[in-house]
Amino acid sequence: MRMLINVPETVVADALRGMAAAHPELTVDVERRVVVRRDAPVAGKVALVSGGGSGHEPLHGGFVGPGMLTAACPGEVFTSPVPDQMVRAAAAVDSGAGVLFVVKNYTGDVLNFEMAAELAEDEGIQVAKVLVDDDVAVTDSLYTAGRRGTGGTLFVEKIAGAAAEEGAPLERVEAIARRVNERSRSFGVALSACTTPAKGSPTFDLPPGELELGVGIHGEPGRERRAMMTSREIADYAVNAVVEDLDPTGPVIALVNGMGGTPLLELYGFNAEVQRVLGERGVPVARTLVGNYVTSLDMAGCSVTLCEVDEELLRLWDAPVQTPALRWGR
Amino acid sequence: MRMLINVPETVVADALRGMAAAHPELTVDVERRVVVRRDAPVAGKVALVSGGGSGHEPLHGGFVGPGMLTAACPGEVFTSPVPDQMVRAAAAVDSGAGVLFVVKNYTGDVLNFEMAAELAEDEGIQVAKVLVDDDVAVTDSLYTAGRRGTGGTLFVEKIAGAAAEEGAPLERVEAIARRVNERSRSFGVALSACTTPAKGSPTFDLPPGELELGVGIHGEPGRERRAMMTSREIADYAVNAVVEDLDPTGPVIALVNGMGGTPLLELYGFNAEVQRVLGERGVPVARTLVGNYVTSLDMAGCSVTLCEVDEELLRLWDAPVQTPALRWGR
Repeated sequence: MRMLINVPETVVADALRGMAAAHPELTVDVERRVVVRRDAPVAGKVALVSGGGSGHEPLHGGFVGPGMLTAACPGEVFTSPVPDQMVRAAAAVDSGAGVLFVVKNYTGDVLNFEMAAELAEDEGIQVAKVLVDDDVAVTDSLYTAGRRGTGGTLFVEKIAGAAAEEGAPLERVEAIARRVNERSRSFGVALSACTTPAKGSPTFDLPPGELELGVGIHGEPGRERRAMMTSREIADYAVNAVVEDLDPTGPVIALVNGMGGTPLLELYGFNAEVQRVLGERGVPVARTLVGNYVTSLDMAGCSVTLCEVDEELLRLWDAPVQTPALRWGR
Repeated sequence: MRMLINVPETVVADALRGMAAAHPELTVDVERRVVVRRDAPVAGKVALVSGGGSGHEPLHGGFVGPGMLTAACPGEVFTSPVPDQMVRAAAAVDSGAGVLFVVKNYTGDVLNFEMAAELAEDEGIQVAKVLVDDDVAVTDSLYTAGRRGTGGTLFVEKIAGAAAEEGAPLERVEAIARRVNERSRSFGVALSACTTPAKGSPTFDLPPGELELGVGIHGEPGRERRAMMTSREIADYAVNAVVEDLDPTGPVIALVNGMGGTPLLELYGFNAEVQRVLGERGVPVARTLVGNYVTSLDMAGCSVTLCEVDEELLRLWDAPVQTPALRWGR
């Protein structure tokens, strides 16, 4: 075990304490596990709340701030947060304009956010929900009925967050979030398994020299396992899987995402191959983001997410955002 | 080998192509290996040029942009760039106000930047140099006479870059860079070795369950090797090493840096322990930055850098910066 931790039981609480110390612009309730934008509730504006298992950082806590999420609820590592966290988050951020829950499609997340929505509505909070299910690799995987939610979450949170920041009403923020999800597709590849603190050993067996094509962000099985491939071959496989499913007619935003254990040097090199395949397929790329944004602890590997954008979605993507992990504009 | 690459020979060129595609705000000369801020030269302003071996991303290319570096010269992985790159960079960015070379203290970097400074001066470019040697772990390590340059580089590039952006003349930018280096100290810890593309296997032998205290950013030996320690124990060791050497009387900026292979979840948890030790030692913390900024490929581990700041240095730290890896303000 080569982890930088105290004991597995305190990993999430320790991280939240460290996050609070680094980011005075956030309010972090370490005990109740809610990360909130400090100036929330923001008068007249819709709030966005997301959450999910820890281990995918910076998702979601690193995306809390003006122009993106209003609050995030981190669960234990690879474990859904509980409804109580989500209700607290909703109560903390609701300005009266309502709350959008952004829910990655994992059975536990879906059930708990549904229960939280009912409880919050009982408290007089107007709640809408959007389900993110962008992963084209498989349907009905471990933990999931239907498609898994992965990199598309970043696009939903950024673009719908920008709409909320502009003052769009709840039904409009919800509609935009849905549109972003419908136009987003992802495909992930693992070059190694990841190790959870509780288990202390790899979560699945991936021998050196093999890779898992279509892996989920918890190491769920993908489409197939193969002998090691080059960056060029992996880009061909992943981008084609995404493009064939999305079938874009307009420009896309590309997220070339690291799973956590792959050096940025390699991710940039992989991006060159991703751009090559997109060029060969005639897909225009409006914006590209390269880095570790939706991770799986120390897993080596990468994912490609494409979001097909129209003029409005691109404008909202470019709108200012001020979060720990994503910031531009002012 | 679990690398996301084509062949070891093209890793740096591939990464530069991918960087060019992702960052239209930079001019990337892939063949000559120079990354330049697109609007350079900036009239009337001092330019900052740095560089070093690749494998430490986002350092240095990810720090090119308004408010930080004007250009960066990436060498091969863990190998110094050559003088020709540095001269080209200097010529591309010099507005007539002069160029500051920011040089990490490794023998190859020092020699090549010295030669480049002479060549650039022959071309009529005014050049100043600042040496970064912030690593308190050891003196005279592998590749280095004196102390190694590590995380302090980020502080020098950010704070001196802000001074240049404000229009400070060369001697003043140089003096500020020197002051930042004199007030910065680092200590690194490896929980695993890293693997270079060319070698394809770990660069040094670190058995699971052991760690290297005081490791360099290329895996150079540190002070001692021990059986695995907790995050709390590592923070005690690393922060005390830094504080005892720096002996700060004023507030510090803390960089809690990942070596590349350690999840952000763990880095935030480690930050909680770093802040605890600083609190116990009575060191006030003005700002904290947590993330993977000065890395060693896929090495698991972390480093702590403290920079003692006065009012001016803190103001320059807070000044706007717009680079791929560090951005705030406007």
